[in-house]
Amino acid sequence: MSIGTIHGVGLGPGDPDLMSVRADRLLRNASHFAHFRKAGRKGQARRIADSTLNPDAIEFAMEYPVTTEIPLSDPRYNETLSSFYTDCANHLRTLAETGKDVVVLCEGDPFFYGSFMHLHSRLRDVVPINVVPAITGMSGAWTATGQPVTWGDDVLTVLMATLPEDDLARRMGDTDALVVMKIGRNIDKVRRALATADRLDAAWLVEYAAMPNQTVTRLVEAADKITPYFSIIIVHGNGRRP
Amino acid sequence: MSIGTIHGVGLGPGDPDLMSVRADRLLRNASHFAHFRKAGRKGQARRIADSTLNPDAIEFAMEYPVTTEIPLSDPRYNETLSSFYTDCANHLRTLAETGKDVVVLCEGDPFFYGSFMHLHSRLRDVVPINVVPAITGMSGAWTATGQPVTWGDDVLTVLMATLPEDDLARRMGDTDALVVMKIGRNIDKVRRALATADRLDAAWLVEYAAMPNQTVTRLVEAADKITPYFSIIIVHGNGRRP
Repeated sequence: MSIGTIHGVGLGPGDPDLMSVRADRLLRNASHFAHFRKAGRKGQARRIADSTLNPDAIEFAMEYPVTTEIPLSDPRYNETLSSFYTDCANHLRTLAETGKDVVVLCEGDPFFYGSFMHLHSRLRDVVPINVVPAITGMSGAWTATGQPVTWGDDVLTVLMATLPEDDLARRMGDTDALVVMKIGRNIDKVRRALATADRLDAAWLVEYAAMPNQTVTRLVEAADKITPYFSIIIVHGNGRRP
Repeated sequence: MSIGTIHGVGLGPGDPDLMSVRADRLLRNASHFAHFRKAGRKGQARRIADSTLNPDAIEFAMEYPVTTEIPLSDPRYNETLSSFYTDCANHLRTLAETGKDVVVLCEGDPFFYGSFMHLHSRLRDVVPINVVPAITGMSGAWTATGQPVTWGDDVLTVLMATLPEDDLARRMGDTDALVVMKIGRNIDKVRRALATADRLDAAWLVEYAAMPNQTVTRLVEAADKITPYFSIIIVHGNGRRP
């Protein structure tokens, strides 16, 4: 019996039509698949893959033990997540060692701020791994705005809203184009940082990019909206445009 | 007769298997397609699309009038390119106004440092436009390195090698993860800037990402190589990894 392969398959921003041809084929032919989700939820990756996945494929749902209950600064946060990822990796390793190929569903691009990386780091020296890149969530978001994000020699900076406010403001003021992700409960801090950097008026908020409930709003006009964790803020560059 | 649509279709980093399902379908059903190329060349976008395009589709090749013959700082550079883009846009407009849908082939993602944007800005208020996002060249490049590019709260900075050396060095030293594009004849300047920022040893050079002739090399080990214009340099982030 030959050893199986773990495929980290990027699903793109949300519309199954935006999966790559390779991802689409891997999902249609999958015998085993795995995905992360919050406890008690179906999971966003699972939802994107739903209409494409082989209906007979065997599911391994990896449920996060913590998300926001323990603060990031608490050492128990890292410890709990670390042993969770190790348990998941061990299960995938066992499947591969018994000859099974497993498709791990990944929102966006697997190597760009994803959870799959924590499986990859534990499995890369142990079993064959194949990573399929994908359209990032931020690509889906800037496409939704209907305007190019970068021109000519523009500098693009990608920031997580979880960073300290002064660091956010400094970096927002020192770039041409800007993407801010992991907004969620950090939205007020992000607004203040954008205002300090004089970029607030140019900022767009995209929620649920490339999904049926997609919204695109100027951030200043989205004053009272609650933004979900996977909303994205875009400030377009203004580089050379002949 | 109804007006046609101009589809700006991202082809991804180079492997036709990494096109989106939507792009694949648009290419297979295309009756007209357009693409940019250097004079006398087949063109990289055309090559990526070759095995997918409807063989009966009618081709409109848009040949750049200048690439590197006139320096960027010369006003004639912008003037020549500007009237070229206007001519191309007018031709596409005429096709749309006679009821034709046209697929414009775009390397990478159309709204991310692409030439399509210069058609988009001229046509957006005139004819229906549909933009299909794609896997970026940089996604192809970081996937090729076999390592995640960003973790946790990492800051990602994307720089064009055409920027001044001191600006490059300052920004390279002030980010976690780094992507440098448009390398070409700027490679020596990029090396010096990376060394000044103390990032040279961590830099990877990816040439022809996701293509059959793909190479991945530590930049310090690529000392004598001539790098093509669309090679990409990656420095991976080192953020939180439970």
